[in-house]
Amino acid sequence: MEKTTDTFPLTMNSSEEQGTVCIFGTGDFGRSLGLKMLHCGYSVVFGSRNPQKSSLLPKGAEVLSYSEAAQKSDIIFLTIHREHYDFLTELTGVLNGKILVDVSNNLKINQYPESNAEYLAQLLPGAHVVKAFNTISAWALQSGALDASRQVFVCGNNNKAKQRVMDIVRTLGLTPLDQGSLKAASEIENYPLQLFPMWKFPFYLSAVLCVFFFFYCVVREVIYPYVYENKDNSFRMAISIPNRVFPIAALTLLALVYLPGVIAAILQLYRGTKYRRFPDWLDHWMLCRKQLGLVALGFAFLHVLYTLVIPIRYYVRWRLGNQTTTQAISKKENPFSTSSAWLSDSYMALGILGFFLFVLLGITSLPSVSNAVNWREFRFVQSKLGYLTLIFCTAHTLIYGGKKFLSPSILRWCLPSAYVIALIIPCTVLVLKFILILPCVNKTLTRIRQGWERHSKVSNWH
Amino acid sequence: MEKTTDTFPLTMNSSEEQGTVCIFGTGDFGRSLGLKMLHCGYSVVFGSRNPQKSSLLPKGAEVLSYSEAAQKSDIIFLTIHREHYDFLTELTGVLNGKILVDVSNNLKINQYPESNAEYLAQLLPGAHVVKAFNTISAWALQSGALDASRQVFVCGNNNKAKQRVMDIVRTLGLTPLDQGSLKAASEIENYPLQLFPMWKFPFYLSAVLCVFFFFYCVVREVIYPYVYENKDNSFRMAISIPNRVFPIAALTLLALVYLPGVIAAILQLYRGTKYRRFPDWLDHWMLCRKQLGLVALGFAFLHVLYTLVIPIRYYVRWRLGNQTTTQAISKKENPFSTSSAWLSDSYMALGILGFFLFVLLGITSLPSVSNAVNWREFRFVQSKLGYLTLIFCTAHTLIYGGKKFLSPSILRWCLPSAYVIALIIPCTVLVLKFILILPCVNKTLTRIRQGWERHSKVSNWH
Amino acid sequence: MEKTTDTFPLTMNSSEEQGTVCIFGTGDFGRSLGLKMLHCGYSVVFGSRNPQKSSLLPKGAEVLSYSEAAQKSDIIFLTIHREHYDFLTELTGVLNGKILVDVSNNLKINQYPESNAEYLAQLLPGAHVVKAFNTISAWALQSGALDASRQVFVCGNNNKAKQRVMDIVRTLGLTPLDQGSLKAASEIENYPLQLFPMWKFPFYLSAVLCVFFFFYCVVREVIYPYVYENKDNSFRMAISIPNRVFPIAALTLLALVYLPGVIAAILQLYRGTKYRRFPDWLDHWMLCRKQLGLVALGFAFLHVLYTLVIPIRYYVRWRLGNQTTTQAISKKENPFSTSSAWLSDSYMALGILGFFLFVLLGITSLPSVSNAVNWREFRFVQSKLGYLTLIFCTAHTLIYGGKKFLSPSILRWCLPSAYVIALIIPCTVLVLKFILILPCVNKTLTRIRQGWERHSKVSNWH
Repeated sequence: MEKTTDTFPLTMNSSEEQGTVCIFGTGDFGRSLGLKMLHCGYSVVFGSRNPQKSSLLPKGAEVLSYSEAAQKSDIIFLTIHREHYDFLTELTGVLNGKILVDVSNNLKINQYPESNAEYLAQLLPGAHVVKAFNTISAWALQSGALDASRQVFVCGNNNKAKQRVMDIVRTLGLTPLDQGSLKAASEIENYPLQLFPMWKFPFYLSAVLCVFFFFYCVVREVIYPYVYENKDNSFRMAISIPNRVFPIAALTLLALVYLPGVIAAILQLYRGTKYRRFPDWLDHWMLCRKQLGLVALGFAFLHVLYTLVIPIRYYVRWRLGNQTTTQAISKKENPFSTSSAWLSDSYMALGILGFFLFVLLGITSLPSVSNAVNWREFRFVQSKLGYLTLIFCTAHTLIYGGKKFLSPSILRWCLPSAYVIALIIPCTVLVLKFILILPCVNKTLTRIRQGWERHSKVSNWH
Repeated sequence: MEKTTDTFPLTMNSSEEQGTVCIFGTGDFGRSLGLKMLHCGYSVVFGSRNPQKSSLLPKGAEVLSYSEAAQKSDIIFLTIHREHYDFLTELTGVLNGKILVDVSNNLKINQYPESNAEYLAQLLPGAHVVKAFNTISAWALQSGALDASRQVFVCGNNNKAKQRVMDIVRTLGLTPLDQGSLKAASEIENYPLQLFPMWKFPFYLSAVLCVFFFFYCVVREVIYPYVYENKDNSFRMAISIPNRVFPIAALTLLALVYLPGVIAAILQLYRGTKYRRFPDWLDHWMLCRKQLGLVALGFAFLHVLYTLVIPIRYYVRWRLGNQTTTQAISKKENPFSTSSAWLSDSYMALGILGFFLFVLLGITSLPSVSNAVNWREFRFVQSKLGYLTLIFCTAHTLIYGGKKFLSPSILRWCLPSAYVIALIIPCTVLVLKFILILPCVNKTLTRIRQGWERHSKVSNWH
Repeated sequence: MEKTTDTFPLTMNSSEEQGTVCIFGTGDFGRSLGLKMLHCGYSVVFGSRNPQKSSLLPKGAEVLSYSEAAQKSDIIFLTIHREHYDFLTELTGVLNGKILVDVSNNLKINQYPESNAEYLAQLLPGAHVVKAFNTISAWALQSGALDASRQVFVCGNNNKAKQRVMDIVRTLGLTPLDQGSLKAASEIENYPLQLFPMWKFPFYLSAVLCVFFFFYCVVREVIYPYVYENKDNSFRMAISIPNRVFPIAALTLLALVYLPGVIAAILQLYRGTKYRRFPDWLDHWMLCRKQLGLVALGFAFLHVLYTLVIPIRYYVRWRLGNQTTTQAISKKENPFSTSSAWLSDSYMALGILGFFLFVLLGITSLPSVSNAVNWREFRFVQSKLGYLTLIFCTAHTLIYGGKKFLSPSILRWCLPSAYVIALIIPCTVLVLKFILILPCVNKTLTRIRQGWERHSKVSNWH
């Protein structure tokens, strides 16, 4: 799909001289960066403790002592660990006024109180420190296989120095992203260490939901028949039970996307102001709503696939074949029930429409799409269409239960069907939301959100 | 999916001083912006008519009179309504040479003849007006939940002032987008007021199509059997009839994507030049082809889902069970018809391939994908693959009709099946396109599109 | 989805003067560019060999001789072919210090040894050459229908000149992308000539795979029964056989995505270093893994659709109906086989989960999504999830075979079922990968990838 890979390849012909750059450190990243820069037409000078030509260094690069190397160029890439920055203070004289590019990464998020780049800037106040290149891997530089990202986050306090580094980034075929002042360095240093931080809560939550409902269904549909009828229903664990667990997880997670908004509204109504912070758990919950919704969409997608393979399952074919055979042997036609047809068809139609809207929501949350809509449009989609999706999916589940909903015959060991439990949160959210949009309540809420305060009370609390 | 939210959070530690900014206006947006800036290390001075410390203002901010506040900073954010800009003329002296950031929005699109920012620039010719921040909501600034977009459109006539504002935007953790000179301000001011303007025509068109064909099918499939056979087919309104309406809408809209191109080609051939403007309706139609196509894809997706649930519908199971029972009772095997198998399989295969190509078209219209392909590739996909999709889908519909296509027995109250009507536009488009790519016609058209003119005639018309 | 089209339309009101630009060349592109610039408030002067007002030129533009036109503006757009650049040397005096924007394209990729823009810079060393606008088509400029891309790649050695051109690009409503120095010009000139270069290998490979397996299956399933049983199975060519070919192609291509990584690891282990280049074929293979994977996903998607329509096919309904009839006539119930139910359900569940993960992989390879994840996350998704997908899909195929896997009864003309052949590559990849992640092997590999070398051997080789 994306083909920038080949259109602007990392390796250009070095027909033209781009100037000299200096690299401190001859480790893997330093060598990879040096090789890449040589390919792009730069002269490269390595600074090293033991300035002897190593066979590992790219051909064409010079190796000098740190201070000699630093004198050859006005821009120095530091590919050394933060722990060894101390020796740089000895070079203060030669590094004064030079651009120092800090490419270092740490082993853990927030390992040090200040970022490596800011620490460097404190060590050498006379140099222009720029943070860059730490999000690019040595392997990617070497192989040119920059699938993950060609983006190089750049930050620094000196604009000229930053521009200089960004030009080099572009010459290497990468995309610089200006992140502002050096204060952004700690964010940039944490960035490559993260593994889907916003997805952790939705992921664990859905795992807990799935495991709980899986065992709940196993008890009801496998163990119960085994104990009472000695029937081996274990095969249901492959498709039938997942196909109960997944829609339950999807519906619950979707409802949990809208629950924090409702709670926040109630809190604001109760407090009579919007100028007090929400509790931390609510803030965090609101920030990962998108991830919750996308996980829910994943479960809904699985539910759709599991449902659509029903007619080609051996069990279903066997059961339908036997039903028809019994019917044929008894020689009577099955009467047609219009109400059953209506129930079956409307429950499916609601499910399909709900899933369709859900997919729309998912598409609009793609970064490139959500960047192309304005705030009003985004709110329209995520709020109006989102609630419509929730209504459709809840109605789909309600009608699925149909006549047998909550009938006592469906209880096994006093356990109701799993979908009955799944309906609790969505119905609660919808009822609360319905109350919140009643004109009288909504009017107060709107005023509060526009900055109005129920002063008398608030001032007492302050 | 996108996790910038947490990697570069809006709230940074204010360990470092970023300088002083001034905000005119103490409304909701002004306060939210001030709070955000305080968090990001700025000193904030509010300018107000009544410079008394309000409990609503963020702690740590100063409140002064307008002219005092303006003297404290070289950059002033105006969070006041355009209607109140007049008083600024009194401050001309103190505002001279300062950067004025206009964040105002209007209530309606094109409410005033010129944009608020341009109006401001006329009022204060000595100040450097920059338009920015109007697309960000107060709530998003406060909560950090910038799901919709971190993009801040910036425009202004003075490049230094613009750069200054863009640096602040970056420090707040947002992405500035340079939109050029102040002339772009009216677009930027209209932007947050729009609600899918390009989608209106496709949306209304498809609504009309759906309603028309829904009632057409209800007449043929529910009312007709009720009148003549007293059969209650009302349950067909949930799935069977939508599953006729949706493919018809999809095919018609897809054909309407390609019709304007064909009409334009015919117009160019007729006029013998490409240098005359198309009528407005054609221009507008051509500009919303993408939206038309995506709506068509939505209907096609619904059609696929409605079709795939067919075998698990109660009605279908009942009908098949009864058929087999009848067959079993009469004790004879159904003979196998190779031609029926061919018809059924090829109609489905065409439908699947058509849908597959349609999804490909949809994916390439995602902004991030279409930005990664060049013009030649985009044209290849949207034109070649697009016509292939249209051909597949039209053939799918033709073969669906199969033998009974246009046979009089299918008429009810003289109404043909709905899909027969749906074929009119696609077939017309395909026939016209076929004529246009005949070598003799195509040669002339290509010459016209490369700038050639049928002079003799044209000059007479001028 | 994207609506920038209308929010920042190309045509603005020309209420304000933007300065004068000069265009050399009065061909189609020159005229379209001139018209566009007039609309955006620029004064346009055309430079022409025969400076007489042509009716084709946009109204409001001046036409002068080259040297006269050049004197009117400090920025000159060259919309002439490279072959005619020679005459510019006569204008060296007047062009000195001016910004020359080279918009030219070639007819073939790498048609000349150096890019047109670099050639121009050599001809006129005193001018500031900027490459831009060559990726925009005349038609798109004229009609405003810039669906493909609003991106204008800009490069040049003089930063001020480049900024100037980028400002004009923005004023025209387009998005400038700074590509660095003039060295990038050859890439920019090749860009619009490319037609999915990275997709060629995956496309041809999959075409070969499909054709081979299609005929393989036709021999086994159509010709064999025709020869031995005189049965006309030709209808299987529409759905049954494609539904064998597509999953085979999908699984094989997916395995081929992971094979080069395994080969590379083995090579590195064997060589004891990572500092030697891989053979070219391996490099190229590794660079088009993403495309291979997406083509595989396409086939998997088709396989899913072809599988889900199974129960509504005429042939399947006929067969099931007859089976049940036979069963009913013989008046016995089919016994239920738990092992068959387990096999059928687990094979489908594995297929669904494999497809689900495959879709996730596809989504993360969308440019906007892969830009939003860091390198660690991308590697996690593409490597860990990727192998999980491969394991699921391989297991799906293995269990599909089930009991009859490799049984001699399934051979026809000594040909095993097609899926047996399809399993060879995936199983090989999985076994090799399993060996590579054994702790002893993995340790060595990790050390090599961190830069370690098995020196003794390597130095001899150097």
